[in-house]
Amino acid sequence: MDEVDELWGQDRRCIPHRSKVLHLRKMPDTTCHMSISLDGFVAGPDQTREQPLGMRGRELHSWHLDDERATDADAAAAGWLMRPRGAYVMGRNMFGPIRGEWDEDWRGWWGPEPPYHAPVFVLTHHAHEPIEMEGGTTFHFVTDGFDAAYAQARETAGENGVDIAGGASTVRQALTAGVIDELALDIAPVLLGSGERIFDGVESFGFEPVEVLHSPLATHIRYRRTG
Amino acid sequence: MDEVDELWGQDRRCIPHRSKVLHLRKMPDTTCHMSISLDGFVAGPDQTREQPLGMRGRELHSWHLDDERATDADAAAAGWLMRPRGAYVMGRNMFGPIRGEWDEDWRGWWGPEPPYHAPVFVLTHHAHEPIEMEGGTTFHFVTDGFDAAYAQARETAGENGVDIAGGASTVRQALTAGVIDELALDIAPVLLGSGERIFDGVESFGFEPVEVLHSPLATHIRYRRTG
Repeated sequence: MDEVDELWGQDRRCIPHRSKVLHLRKMPDTTCHMSISLDGFVAGPDQTREQPLGMRGRELHSWHLDDERATDADAAAAGWLMRPRGAYVMGRNMFGPIRGEWDEDWRGWWGPEPPYHAPVFVLTHHAHEPIEMEGGTTFHFVTDGFDAAYAQARETAGENGVDIAGGASTVRQALTAGVIDELALDIAPVLLGSGERIFDGVESFGFEPVEVLHSPLATHIRYRRTG
Repeated sequence: MDEVDELWGQDRRCIPHRSKVLHLRKMPDTTCHMSISLDGFVAGPDQTREQPLGMRGRELHSWHLDDERATDADAAAAGWLMRPRGAYVMGRNMFGPIRGEWDEDWRGWWGPEPPYHAPVFVLTHHAHEPIEMEGGTTFHFVTDGFDAAYAQARETAGENGVDIAGGASTVRQALTAGVIDELALDIAPVLLGSGERIFDGVESFGFEPVEVLHSPLATHIRYRRTG
Protein backbone atom coordinates (compact mmCIF):
# COMPACT_ATOMS: atom_id res chain seq x y z
CA MET A 1 0.00 0.00 0.00
CA ASP A 2 1.61 3.29 -0.97
CA GLU A 3 1.38 6.44 1.12
CA VAL A 4 -1.53 7.89 -0.83
CA ASP A 5 -3.69 4.80 -0.42
CA GLU A 6 -2.68 4.47 3.18
CA LEU A 7 -3.56 8.07 3.94
CA TRP A 8 -6.97 8.04 2.44
CA GLY A 9 -7.86 4.38 2.23
CA GLN A 10 -8.97 3.99 5.80
CA ASP A 11 -11.11 7.09 5.77
CA ARG A 12 -12.69 5.97 2.54
CA ARG A 13 -13.66 2.66 4.10
CA CYS A 14 -15.03 3.99 7.37
CA ILE A 15 -16.88 7.12 6.31
CA PRO A 16 -20.62 6.73 6.82
CA HIS A 17 -23.11 8.42 4.57
CA ARG A 18 -24.85 11.35 6.21
CA SER A 19 -27.66 9.98 8.27
CA LYS A 20 -31.03 11.58 8.68
CA VAL A 21 -30.54 11.56 12.44
CA LEU A 22 -27.46 13.76 12.15
CA HIS A 23 -29.36 16.10 9.88
CA LEU A 24 -31.65 16.99 12.73
CA ARG A 25 -28.87 18.00 15.10
CA LYS A 26 -27.61 21.57 15.22
CA MET A 27 -24.11 21.40 13.77
CA PRO A 28 -21.46 24.07 14.15
CA ASP A 29 -21.58 26.36 11.20
CA THR A 30 -18.03 26.24 9.83
CA THR A 31 -15.45 23.71 11.00
CA CYS A 32 -11.84 22.92 10.25
CA HIS A 33 -9.76 19.97 11.41
CA MET A 34 -6.00 19.79 10.91
CA SER A 35 -3.21 17.54 12.12
CA ILE A 36 -0.18 19.61 13.04
CA SER A 37 3.33 19.07 14.34
CA LEU A 38 4.36 20.51 17.68
CA ASP A 39 6.45 23.04 15.76
CA GLY A 40 3.43 24.15 13.75
CA PHE A 41 3.56 22.41 10.39
CA VAL A 42 0.58 20.73 8.74
CA ALA A 43 2.69 19.30 5.92
CA GLY A 44 6.38 18.66 5.48
CA PRO A 45 8.55 20.17 2.75
CA ASP A 46 8.79 18.73 -0.79
CA GLN A 47 5.18 17.70 -1.39
CA THR A 48 4.97 15.37 -4.38
CA ARG A 49 2.53 13.03 -6.04
CA GLU A 50 4.04 10.16 -4.05
CA GLN A 51 4.21 12.10 -0.79
CA PRO A 52 1.24 14.46 -0.83
CA LEU A 53 1.93 15.56 2.76
CA GLY A 54 5.60 16.25 2.10
CA MET A 55 8.61 14.75 3.82
CA ARG A 56 7.58 13.12 7.09
CA GLY A 57 4.13 14.71 6.82
CA ARG A 58 2.55 11.32 7.28
CA GLU A 59 3.85 11.24 10.86
CA LEU A 60 1.25 13.87 11.74
CA HIS A 61 -1.48 11.38 10.88
CA SER A 62 -0.34 8.24 12.74
CA TRP A 63 -3.25 8.68 15.14
CA HIS A 64 -5.79 7.71 12.46
CA LEU A 65 -3.66 5.46 10.26
CA ASP A 66 -3.75 2.06 11.93
CA ASP A 67 -0.94 2.73 14.41
CA GLU A 68 -1.14 0.13 17.15
CA ARG A 69 -0.62 2.79 19.83
CA ALA A 70 -3.89 4.52 18.88
CA THR A 71 -6.53 4.68 21.60
CA ASP A 72 -10.20 5.55 22.05
CA ALA A 73 -9.14 9.20 22.19
CA ASP A 74 -7.88 8.91 18.62
CA ALA A 75 -11.09 7.19 17.55
CA ALA A 76 -13.12 10.04 19.07
CA ALA A 77 -11.01 12.61 17.24
CA ALA A 78 -11.46 10.67 14.01
CA GLY A 79 -15.19 11.02 14.66
CA TRP A 80 -14.79 14.80 14.78
CA LEU A 81 -12.88 14.64 11.50
CA MET A 82 -15.28 12.39 9.66
CA ARG A 83 -18.63 13.80 10.71
CA PRO A 84 -20.75 14.69 7.70
CA ARG A 85 -20.80 18.28 6.50
CA GLY A 86 -22.93 20.10 3.95
CA ALA A 87 -20.07 21.35 1.78
CA TYR A 88 -16.29 21.68 1.78
CA VAL A 89 -13.73 24.27 0.71
CA MET A 90 -10.39 22.87 -0.38
CA GLY A 91 -7.19 24.28 -1.83
CA ARG A 92 -6.02 23.04 -5.16
CA ASN A 93 -2.81 21.57 -3.77
CA MET A 94 -4.90 19.42 -1.49
CA PHE A 95 -7.06 18.32 -4.41
CA GLY A 96 -4.09 17.09 -6.41
CA PRO A 97 -0.47 17.42 -7.45
CA ILE A 98 -1.10 19.28 -10.72
CA ARG A 99 0.15 22.89 -10.84
CA GLY A 100 -0.69 25.39 -13.58
CA GLU A 101 -2.98 24.27 -16.43
CA TRP A 102 -5.01 21.05 -16.05
CA ASP A 103 -3.02 18.66 -18.24
CA GLU A 104 -4.52 15.35 -17.20
CA ASP A 105 -7.81 13.89 -16.01
CA TRP A 106 -7.11 14.17 -12.28
CA ARG A 107 -10.08 13.32 -10.05
CA GLY A 108 -8.58 13.70 -6.56
CA TRP A 109 -6.58 11.37 -4.32
CA TRP A 110 -9.58 9.49 -3.01
CA GLY A 111 -10.62 7.00 -5.68
CA PRO A 112 -14.09 6.78 -7.24
CA GLU A 113 -15.99 7.51 -3.99
CA PRO A 114 -14.31 10.30 -2.02
CA PRO A 115 -15.04 10.59 1.71
CA TYR A 116 -16.89 13.92 1.41
CA HIS A 117 -20.33 12.89 0.16
CA ALA A 118 -21.13 16.54 -0.49
CA PRO A 119 -20.08 19.37 -2.82
CA VAL A 120 -16.41 20.32 -2.53
CA PHE A 121 -15.38 23.79 -3.72
CA VAL A 122 -11.79 23.69 -4.93
CA LEU A 123 -9.80 26.96 -5.09
CA THR A 124 -7.83 27.25 -8.33
CA HIS A 125 -6.60 29.83 -10.83
CA HIS A 126 -7.53 27.51 -13.70
CA ALA A 127 -11.18 26.94 -14.59
CA HIS A 128 -12.45 23.38 -14.84
CA GLU A 129 -15.85 21.76 -15.31
CA PRO A 130 -17.35 20.18 -12.17
CA ILE A 131 -16.39 16.56 -11.56
CA GLU A 132 -19.14 14.36 -10.20
CA MET A 133 -17.95 11.36 -8.22
CA GLU A 134 -19.74 8.42 -6.63
CA GLY A 135 -21.41 8.78 -3.24
CA GLY A 136 -22.49 12.39 -3.51
CA THR A 137 -19.15 14.18 -3.86
CA THR A 138 -18.91 16.74 -6.65
CA PHE A 139 -15.77 18.83 -7.10
CA HIS A 140 -16.56 22.40 -8.18
CA PHE A 141 -13.69 24.63 -9.26
CA VAL A 142 -13.75 28.26 -8.14
CA THR A 143 -11.43 30.80 -9.75
CA ASP A 144 -12.41 33.98 -7.93
CA GLY A 145 -10.86 33.40 -4.53
CA PHE A 146 -11.54 32.11 -1.06
CA ASP A 147 -14.43 34.42 -0.22
CA ALA A 148 -16.34 33.37 -3.34
CA ALA A 149 -15.70 29.68 -2.72
CA TYR A 150 -16.77 29.99 0.90
CA ALA A 151 -19.94 31.87 -0.06
CA GLN A 152 -20.88 29.15 -2.53
CA ALA A 153 -20.13 26.44 0.02
CA ARG A 154 -22.29 28.14 2.65
CA GLU A 155 -25.18 28.57 0.29
CA THR A 156 -24.98 24.93 -0.75
CA ALA A 157 -24.47 23.56 2.75
CA GLY A 158 -27.37 25.31 4.39
CA GLU A 159 -27.84 24.20 7.96
CA ASN A 160 -25.37 21.35 7.57
CA GLY A 161 -22.41 23.66 7.72
CA VAL A 162 -19.18 24.04 5.85
CA ASP A 163 -15.83 22.41 6.53
CA ILE A 164 -12.54 23.98 5.51
CA ALA A 165 -10.78 20.84 4.35
CA GLY A 166 -7.27 22.28 3.89
CA GLY A 167 -4.47 22.64 3.01
CA ALA A 168 -2.41 25.21 4.84
CA SER A 169 -3.01 28.16 2.52
CA THR A 170 -6.77 27.67 2.48
CA VAL A 171 -6.90 27.37 6.27
CA ARG A 172 -4.82 30.54 6.63
CA GLN A 173 -7.31 32.35 4.41
CA ALA A 174 -10.24 31.01 6.44
CA LEU A 175 -8.64 32.03 9.74
CA THR A 176 -7.83 35.48 8.40
CA ALA A 177 -11.40 35.84 7.13
CA GLY A 178 -12.65 34.84 10.60
CA VAL A 179 -15.16 32.32 9.29
CA ILE A 180 -14.20 29.25 11.32
CA ASP A 181 -16.42 28.51 14.32
CA GLU A 182 -14.75 25.31 15.45
CA LEU A 183 -11.12 24.39 14.85
CA ALA A 184 -9.87 20.94 15.81
CA LEU A 185 -6.13 20.39 15.96
CA ASP A 186 -4.37 17.07 16.43
CA ILE A 187 -0.98 18.06 17.79
CA ALA A 188 1.41 15.22 16.99
CA PRO A 189 4.51 14.90 19.20
CA VAL A 190 6.71 15.41 16.16
CA LEU A 191 9.04 18.17 14.96
CA LEU A 192 9.15 18.61 11.18
CA GLY A 193 11.48 21.65 11.11
CA SER A 194 10.04 22.98 7.86
CA GLY A 195 6.98 22.75 5.65
CA GLU A 196 3.57 24.42 5.55
CA ARG A 197 2.26 26.48 8.47
CA ILE A 198 -1.36 27.52 9.05
CA PHE A 199 -0.86 30.46 11.41
CA ASP A 200 1.76 32.55 9.58
CA GLY A 201 0.32 36.00 9.00
CA VAL A 202 -2.86 35.29 10.97
CA GLU A 203 -3.00 38.23 13.37
CA SER A 204 -5.42 37.10 16.04
CA PHE A 205 -6.81 33.77 17.09
CA GLY A 206 -10.06 34.27 18.98
CA PHE A 207 -10.67 30.66 20.02
CA GLU A 208 -10.54 28.79 23.30
CA PRO A 209 -10.10 25.07 23.97
CA VAL A 210 -13.39 23.37 24.89
CA GLU A 211 -12.48 19.69 24.66
CA VAL A 212 -9.11 17.97 24.80
CA LEU A 213 -8.28 14.28 24.35
CA HIS A 214 -4.91 12.61 24.09
CA SER A 215 -3.14 9.41 23.22
CA PRO A 216 0.57 8.70 22.81
CA LEU A 217 0.15 9.73 19.17
CA ALA A 218 -1.53 13.13 19.47
CA THR A 219 -3.20 15.73 21.64
CA HIS A 220 -6.60 16.47 20.13
CA ILE A 221 -7.93 19.94 20.91
CA ARG A 222 -11.34 21.27 19.90
CA TYR A 223 -11.31 25.07 19.87
CA ARG A 224 -14.49 27.16 19.71
CA ARG A 225 -14.62 30.71 18.49
CA THR A 226 -14.99 33.16 21.36
CA GLY A 227 -15.75 36.35 19.47
CA MET B 1 1.66 46.50 39.91
CA ASP B 2 3.91 46.46 36.86
CA GLU B 3 4.33 43.48 34.57
CA VAL B 4 7.47 42.19 36.27
CA ASP B 5 5.90 42.13 39.71
CA GLU B 6 2.76 40.64 38.32
CA LEU B 7 4.64 37.88 36.55
CA TRP B 8 6.73 36.75 39.44
CA GLY B 9 4.94 38.10 42.47
CA GLN B 10 2.32 35.40 42.70
CA ASP B 11 4.78 32.58 42.34
CA ARG B 12 6.97 34.15 44.99
CA ARG B 13 4.08 34.17 47.41
CA CYS B 14 2.80 30.67 46.83
CA ILE B 15 5.99 28.64 46.48
CA PRO B 16 6.41 26.23 49.37
CA HIS B 17 9.83 25.31 50.67
CA ARG B 18 10.87 21.80 49.79
CA SER B 19 9.31 19.47 52.28
CA LYS B 20 10.92 16.34 53.62
CA VAL B 21 7.95 14.35 52.36
CA LEU B 22 8.63 15.39 48.79
CA HIS B 23 12.28 14.49 49.22
CA LEU B 24 11.31 10.88 49.65
CA ARG B 25 9.37 10.68 46.38
CA LYS B 26 11.06 9.65 43.17
CA MET B 27 11.09 12.78 41.04
CA PRO B 28 11.71 12.86 37.32
CA ASP B 29 15.34 13.51 36.70
CA THR B 30 15.28 16.56 34.46
CA THR B 31 12.17 18.63 33.85
CA CYS B 32 11.24 21.70 31.85
CA HIS B 33 8.00 23.66 31.86
CA MET B 34 7.23 26.37 29.31
CA SER B 35 4.19 28.41 28.36
CA ILE B 36 3.94 28.69 24.59
CA SER B 37 1.70 30.29 22.01
CA LEU B 38 -0.18 28.15 19.53
CA ASP B 39 2.24 29.40 16.87
CA GLY B 40 5.22 28.27 18.89
CA PHE B 41 6.61 31.30 20.70
CA VAL B 42 7.62 31.31 24.37
CA ALA B 43 8.26 35.06 24.38
CA GLY B 44 7.19 37.91 22.17
CA PRO B 45 9.55 40.21 20.27
CA ASP B 46 11.23 43.26 21.85
CA GLN B 47 12.03 41.92 25.30
CA THR B 48 12.89 44.80 27.64
CA ARG B 49 13.37 45.47 31.34
CA GLU B 50 9.73 46.55 31.52
CA GLN B 51 8.44 43.67 29.40
CA PRO B 52 10.73 40.71 30.11
CA LEU B 53 8.53 38.38 28.06
CA GLY B 54 8.44 40.70 25.06
CA MET B 55 5.42 42.20 23.36
CA ARG B 56 2.28 40.33 24.36
CA GLY B 57 4.40 37.58 25.97
CA ARG B 58 2.42 37.97 29.17
CA GLU B 59 -0.65 36.58 27.38
CA LEU B 60 1.01 33.16 27.44
CA HIS B 61 0.87 33.22 31.24
CA SER B 62 -2.73 34.27 31.90
CA TRP B 63 -3.45 30.76 33.18
CA HIS B 64 -1.37 31.35 36.34
CA LEU B 65 -1.67 35.12 36.70
CA ASP B 66 -4.98 35.67 38.47
CA ASP B 67 -7.18 35.53 35.38
CA GLU B 68 -10.75 34.94 36.49
CA ARG B 69 -11.26 32.31 33.79
CA ALA B 70 -8.60 30.06 35.36
CA THR B 71 -9.80 26.66 36.57
CA ASP B 72 -8.59 23.71 38.63
CA ALA B 73 -6.75 22.51 35.52
CA ASP B 74 -4.62 25.64 35.64
CA ALA B 75 -3.99 25.19 39.35
CA ALA B 76 -2.83 21.63 38.71
CA ALA B 77 -0.47 22.81 35.98
CA ALA B 78 0.87 25.49 38.32
CA GLY B 79 1.61 22.64 40.70
CA TRP B 80 3.72 20.97 38.00
CA LEU B 81 5.55 24.26 37.50
CA MET B 82 6.19 25.01 41.14
CA ARG B 83 7.20 21.62 42.48
CA PRO B 84 10.56 21.77 44.22
CA ARG B 85 13.68 20.77 42.29
CA GLY B 86 17.27 20.18 43.34
CA ALA B 87 18.85 22.70 40.96
CA TYR B 88 18.01 24.86 37.98
CA VAL B 89 19.68 25.84 34.70
CA MET B 90 18.73 29.27 33.37
CA GLY B 91 19.79 31.44 30.46
CA ARG B 92 21.20 34.84 31.20
CA ASN B 93 18.38 36.65 29.39
CA MET B 94 15.94 34.99 31.74
CA PHE B 95 18.03 36.02 34.74
CA GLY B 96 17.95 39.67 33.78
CA PRO B 97 17.93 42.38 31.14
CA ILE B 98 21.68 43.13 31.24
CA ARG B 99 23.62 42.24 28.09
CA GLY B 100 27.42 42.25 27.82
CA GLU B 101 29.48 43.14 30.90
CA TRP B 102 27.79 43.21 34.32
CA ASP B 103 27.42 46.94 34.86
CA GLU B 104 25.03 46.99 37.82
CA ASP B 105 24.14 44.93 40.87
CA TRP B 106 21.36 42.91 39.27
CA ARG B 107 19.99 40.11 41.46
CA GLY B 108 17.21 38.66 39.28
CA TRP B 109 13.58 39.61 38.71
CA TRP B 110 12.27 37.88 41.78
CA GLY B 111 13.03 40.11 44.78
CA PRO B 112 15.01 39.05 47.86
CA GLU B 113 13.54 35.51 48.02
CA PRO B 114 13.32 33.95 44.54
CA PRO B 115 10.93 31.02 44.01
CA TYR B 116 13.70 28.47 43.36
CA HIS B 117 14.96 27.64 46.87
CA ALA B 118 17.90 25.79 45.32
CA PRO B 119 21.06 26.53 43.33
CA VAL B 120 20.41 28.15 39.95
CA PHE B 121 23.13 27.84 37.30
CA VAL B 122 22.99 30.84 34.98
CA LEU B 123 24.56 30.59 31.52
CA THR B 124 26.61 33.67 30.65
CA HIS B 125 29.70 34.72 28.74
CA HIS B 126 30.68 37.08 31.57
CA ALA B 127 32.00 35.67 34.85
CA HIS B 128 30.34 36.77 38.08
CA GLU B 129 30.64 35.78 41.73
CA PRO B 130 27.75 33.67 43.07
CA ILE B 131 24.82 35.62 44.48
CA GLU B 132 23.21 34.15 47.56
CA MET B 133 19.57 35.08 48.08
CA GLU B 134 17.09 34.41 50.87
CA GLY B 135 15.24 31.10 51.06
CA GLY B 136 17.97 28.84 49.65
CA THR B 137 18.40 30.25 46.16
CA THR B 138 21.98 30.92 45.04
CA PHE B 139 22.73 32.10 41.52
CA HIS B 140 25.93 30.57 40.12
CA PHE B 141 27.32 31.93 36.86
CA VAL B 142 28.71 29.44 34.36
CA THR B 143 30.81 30.62 31.44
CA ASP B 144 31.69 27.35 29.73
CA GLY B 145 28.39 26.47 28.13
CA PHE B 146 25.20 24.50 28.60
CA ASP B 147 26.78 21.09 29.09
CA ALA B 148 28.98 22.38 31.92
CA ALA B 149 26.09 24.16 33.60
CA TYR B 150 23.88 21.10 33.32
CA ALA B 151 26.62 18.82 34.73
CA GLN B 152 27.02 21.11 37.74
CA ALA B 153 23.28 21.28 38.25
CA ARG B 154 22.96 17.51 38.15
CA GLU B 155 25.75 16.99 40.60
CA THR B 156 24.26 19.54 42.97
CA ALA B 157 20.68 18.32 42.60
CA GLY B 158 21.34 14.67 43.26
CA GLU B 159 18.14 12.68 43.44
CA ASN B 160 16.00 15.81 43.50
CA GLY B 161 16.47 16.44 39.84
CA VAL B 162 17.22 19.41 37.63
CA ASP B 163 14.80 21.82 36.01
CA ILE B 164 15.60 23.71 32.85
CA ALA B 165 14.06 27.04 33.78
CA GLY B 166 14.33 28.78 30.39
CA GLY B 167 14.43 30.88 28.31
CA ALA B 168 14.10 29.75 24.73
CA SER B 169 17.79 29.39 23.90
CA THR B 170 18.54 27.36 27.01
CA VAL B 171 15.56 25.07 26.36
CA ARG B 172 16.68 24.57 22.75
CA GLN B 173 20.11 23.55 23.99
CA ALA B 174 18.59 21.15 26.52
CA LEU B 175 16.32 19.57 23.88
CA THR B 176 19.21 19.23 21.45
CA ALA B 177 21.36 17.66 24.18
CA GLY B 178 18.50 15.22 24.89
CA VAL B 179 18.63 15.71 28.66
CA ILE B 180 14.97 16.51 29.37
CA ASP B 181 12.89 13.64 30.75
CA GLU B 182 9.64 15.50 31.23
CA LEU B 183 8.53 18.55 29.28
CA ALA B 184 5.36 20.39 30.26
CA LEU B 185 3.89 22.85 27.80
CA ASP B 186 1.04 25.24 28.46
CA ILE B 187 -0.30 25.99 25.00
CA ALA B 188 -2.10 29.32 25.20
CA PRO B 189 -4.79 30.00 22.56
CA VAL B 190 -2.82 32.99 21.36
CA LEU B 191 -0.87 33.83 18.20
CA LEU B 192 2.18 36.06 18.75
CA GLY B 193 3.45 36.06 15.17
CA SER B 194 7.08 36.57 16.17
CA GLY B 195 9.42 36.19 19.12
CA GLU B 196 11.43 33.35 20.62
CA ARG B 197 10.89 29.73 19.60
CA ILE B 198 12.09 26.65 21.48
CA PHE B 199 12.00 24.06 18.70
CA ASP B 200 13.92 25.80 15.90
CA GLY B 201 16.86 23.62 14.95
CA VAL B 202 15.83 20.76 17.26
CA GLU B 203 15.89 17.77 14.95
CA SER B 204 13.90 15.15 16.79
CA PHE B 205 11.44 15.25 19.66
CA GLY B 206 11.24 11.83 21.31
CA PHE B 207 8.41 12.56 23.76
CA GLU B 208 4.80 11.48 24.04
CA PRO B 209 1.91 13.13 25.88
CA VAL B 210 1.09 11.37 29.15
CA GLU B 211 -1.25 13.86 30.84
CA VAL B 212 -3.34 16.67 29.39
CA LEU B 213 -5.49 19.23 31.18
CA HIS B 214 -7.24 22.26 29.79
CA SER B 215 -9.03 25.44 30.69
CA PRO B 216 -10.19 28.30 28.49
CA LEU B 217 -6.73 29.83 29.04
CA ALA B 218 -4.41 26.98 28.08
CA THR B 219 -3.98 23.34 27.16
CA HIS B 220 -1.47 21.85 29.59
CA ILE B 221 0.43 18.86 28.23
CA ARG B 222 2.94 16.76 30.16
CA TYR B 223 5.27 14.96 27.76
CA ARG B 224 7.53 12.10 28.85
CA ARG B 225 10.66 11.08 27.01
CA THR B 226 10.13 7.86 25.05
CA GLY B 227 13.70 7.03 24.06
